[in-house]
Amino acid sequence: MFSKAITTTTQRTVVSSLLKQSKCLFTTSSKKNNFDGLYEKHKKIADVPMKTEEVMKAISENTLFTWNPSATAAASSIVMERGEGVYFFDKQGKKYIDFNSQAMCSNLGHTVPQEVIDAVDKQLKTVAYAYPCGLVTEVKAKLSLLMADLMPGDLNHFYYVSGGAEANETAMRMARLKTGRHKILARYRSYHGATLGAMGLTGDPRRWGSEPGASGIVHFMDPFPYTFSWGSTEEEICQKSLQYLREVISYEGGKNIAAIFLEPVTGTNGILKPPAGYLEGVRQICDQHGILMVCDEVMNGFGRTGTMFGFEQANNVIPDIVTMAKGINGAFIPLGAVACRDHVAAHFQKSPIGIGSTYNSHPVTLASAYAALQYFLRTDVLGNVHRMEPILQSLMEDLKKRHPTVKTFRSLGLFGTVELQKNSRGEPFVEFNGPAHPAMAQLKNDMISNGLYTLVRFSSFFTNPPLIINEKELRQGFEILDKCLTNLDKHFEK
Amino acid sequence: MFSKAITTTTQRTVVSSLLKQSKCLFTTSSKKNNFDGLYEKHKKIADVPMKTEEVMKAISENTLFTWNPSATAAASSIVMERGEGVYFFDKQGKKYIDFNSQAMCSNLGHTVPQEVIDAVDKQLKTVAYAYPCGLVTEVKAKLSLLMADLMPGDLNHFYYVSGGAEANETAMRMARLKTGRHKILARYRSYHGATLGAMGLTGDPRRWGSEPGASGIVHFMDPFPYTFSWGSTEEEICQKSLQYLREVISYEGGKNIAAIFLEPVTGTNGILKPPAGYLEGVRQICDQHGILMVCDEVMNGFGRTGTMFGFEQANNVIPDIVTMAKGINGAFIPLGAVACRDHVAAHFQKSPIGIGSTYNSHPVTLASAYAALQYFLRTDVLGNVHRMEPILQSLMEDLKKRHPTVKTFRSLGLFGTVELQKNSRGEPFVEFNGPAHPAMAQLKNDMISNGLYTLVRFSSFFTNPPLIINEKELRQGFEILDKCLTNLDKHFEK
Ligand SMILES: Cc1ncc(COP(=O)(O)O)c(C=O)c1O
Ligand SMILES: Cc1ncc(COP(=O)(O)O)c(C=O)c1O
Repeated sequence: MFSKAITTTTQRTVVSSLLKQSKCLFTTSSKKNNFDGLYEKHKKIADVPMKTEEVMKAISENTLFTWNPSATAAASSIVMERGEGVYFFDKQGKKYIDFNSQAMCSNLGHTVPQEVIDAVDKQLKTVAYAYPCGLVTEVKAKLSLLMADLMPGDLNHFYYVSGGAEANETAMRMARLKTGRHKILARYRSYHGATLGAMGLTGDPRRWGSEPGASGIVHFMDPFPYTFSWGSTEEEICQKSLQYLREVISYEGGKNIAAIFLEPVTGTNGILKPPAGYLEGVRQICDQHGILMVCDEVMNGFGRTGTMFGFEQANNVIPDIVTMAKGINGAFIPLGAVACRDHVAAHFQKSPIGIGSTYNSHPVTLASAYAALQYFLRTDVLGNVHRMEPILQSLMEDLKKRHPTVKTFRSLGLFGTVELQKNSRGEPFVEFNGPAHPAMAQLKNDMISNGLYTLVRFSSFFTNPPLIINEKELRQGFEILDKCLTNLDKHFEK
Repeated sequence: MFSKAITTTTQRTVVSSLLKQSKCLFTTSSKKNNFDGLYEKHKKIADVPMKTEEVMKAISENTLFTWNPSATAAASSIVMERGEGVYFFDKQGKKYIDFNSQAMCSNLGHTVPQEVIDAVDKQLKTVAYAYPCGLVTEVKAKLSLLMADLMPGDLNHFYYVSGGAEANETAMRMARLKTGRHKILARYRSYHGATLGAMGLTGDPRRWGSEPGASGIVHFMDPFPYTFSWGSTEEEICQKSLQYLREVISYEGGKNIAAIFLEPVTGTNGILKPPAGYLEGVRQICDQHGILMVCDEVMNGFGRTGTMFGFEQANNVIPDIVTMAKGINGAFIPLGAVACRDHVAAHFQKSPIGIGSTYNSHPVTLASAYAALQYFLRTDVLGNVHRMEPILQSLMEDLKKRHPTVKTFRSLGLFGTVELQKNSRGEPFVEFNGPAHPAMAQLKNDMISNGLYTLVRFSSFFTNPPLIINEKELRQGFEILDKCLTNLDKHFEK
């Protein structure tokens, strides 16, 4: 799989000195576009593996990070050197078990199936790119036939983009154009992506940095708010949060609302399965007002929750539009998709969607998904999720029994989170969007130094391993978690 | 390169009947997620090449198009079967010369260099994906060092996304966060992408379908409007359009403006090189008010205009932020990038950008760019553009001499457009955003039937071949254009 490049000492020395050179050697204003020697320089750099410090120097000096200040992010970064199954390795050969599938997207783990590699190779050698406005490819036809078979009801029509945010942007545009209405409803405990429209949909505070942003989006409260409860039983919660939604709609005007967006099972905002009847209720409300129901399956989709799609947790709910990314191809190449029902597609047979990006229906991305989905079916990844689901549940229960800092946990399929508390009053280490707590930073460090990688957010952490994980690996991950929580328990105040 | 799959008659018959099956066989509401037999069905479909009609049936029934009503778009689509150099072939083996590099993005043509294929393969086998918020890769470090050498001045800091729109969304967010100001200025004759923020920046009518959209964006007029001129000399045009911009800024309030976005050489809105001094003037205006100058190099970048970047057509203009995509890797895999100067990067060392998408810094996309840029340098693609530039110019002049319907043309580097007129009064066949004209549809058809593919928009067509085109191929393309224009000339009214 992975063969170490053979490097001589001289090569190393040359490259080390090249890495110290200033770029001014090559581009000066007086010698515009003089690239003499640039190929040779970078060929040498390309041929020799870098040391960790060299990677980190270039990363610090020449790149910027995403959700954290770049200096902080660089300081705590791991250089990923190779991946294998549910594991990845850094440059020192240290092994990490991936308990968050990176961004809950490496659903097939870190070893790309050979059939996916072959499909990408073949596509690059035949049609690497085709402009989506007038040129079509066989792989687009074949993938769409497969997708239509994977999706229930008349979710038969597909539109391919380069990620989850673009999928949601497209869904929003489609809903507005199809209905002729402008307002969109979305929920507070949600994340829908980072472009302006998708950020507008996003309910959680990641939205703040892009405001004032998209117009016409109204956020409503979820069935499971952070700081209060709609009721004491699942039924009451469901009834009351639906009634609340009906009242919001009556203030906003049902006939002004194009769509309601929701993650069927809430992802980064807490792995929240809606109460029984909730999605059915939303579907009914939508039907009543001619509002389109849009399910964001970017994180849920392709088996994460134990059903192929998160909305299939409910009974016979068919959304009008479904957005996808991540699991569609195991994140091996950027890809997103939008599915819609016949009545929505009929509108766009006659009228343009008008959101075509250059990389819409990019054939190489489609080839990767076509092969990855066949791999998914052939190796019965969904069956593995079903087999691992009760094991994950019981490991979560054990963790809660053994650790006073574990307040509660939630999981379905291989989608889980553990909420932590700092005292017997159930207070979190970090309030929702509140200031950091050293114990949580320590927990994160303990995980990393013990070789477990996952997302730690506020006062919780996630358990979302690749869907191909086996029992032994799952137990191994929980042994590490157990050890780290034993340390955290020292911070517990009775 | 391309090997035809060997298919038996029985295989074909089985597949033909499978393609007629309804999807209901597999997903019924009573048998939720029962995928029995689905793998076997699609394995059979995967293994057998489809006929054109089969591709088109699936495309029509199961996909949606971008900028045109899907029914219309499907009716005129070509099934791209393979590519080779500046050519591509449909399923009937018909050969087309690509005179628009697809969406002005297949800059390296349709044969993916072997080193790019190898780099993608190797990346898939080592690190296929790494979460950009905390995990870094060697390829990200190496590509960023190369990018820093390719860009002038202190444009040393890079942020990688999945396409041009995301790059512009990021630049917009960065400009607002860095300056603490909300307003953005962008030009009317522009296209910046299809997500909500990028659509907000876009000046041309493609924006309409997404309005009301992004807040705080103000559009101003270009130095070359469609329907009037700022003056009779280049100098007057430059001075007056800059003075106009200064006055717009004084109405909007310089201290409220975060950034001015522009395509250095306007792309789909007409291949317009700004008058001498214009970009320098904009740079000066920006400096005066602390406004960031953002150059959208999505289409210009990587040699299209004859310089590495479009802004290098001007003298010593270094934008604060540069956005890129397309040519960065020849469009072989979705990738976009944002570059910024030291003073901008310094801000984000301490403060997050907050726009991290899952596929930010996707290692496979970076590997494709790293190899493609080395190929670009090694084979001196820019040198080829310099050699072809005067040939393209003289072929354009010949075309104008020979055809009364050619009103004018503009080209620099391998970036060209021909404007057509229907009579000696210089009236266009199609007004800007006006109703279609049968002669233009006929022209488009003639091109396709004569084996030339390019973009026809309003009353013009484009000449933007892959940057690797040679003289023979260029002349061959113009022979086809000559033939098609001879037909068009019949519509010319003296
Ligand atoms: C539910 C959901 N929607 C949308 C997105 C955005 O997807 P992307 O990051 O590919 O743009 C995410 C990403 O985490 C997500 O979890
Ligand atoms: C100048 C310019 N900017 C931005 C874009 C948008 O890029 P993408 O389609 O990759 O989102 C384009 C696409 O054609 C473009 O030409």
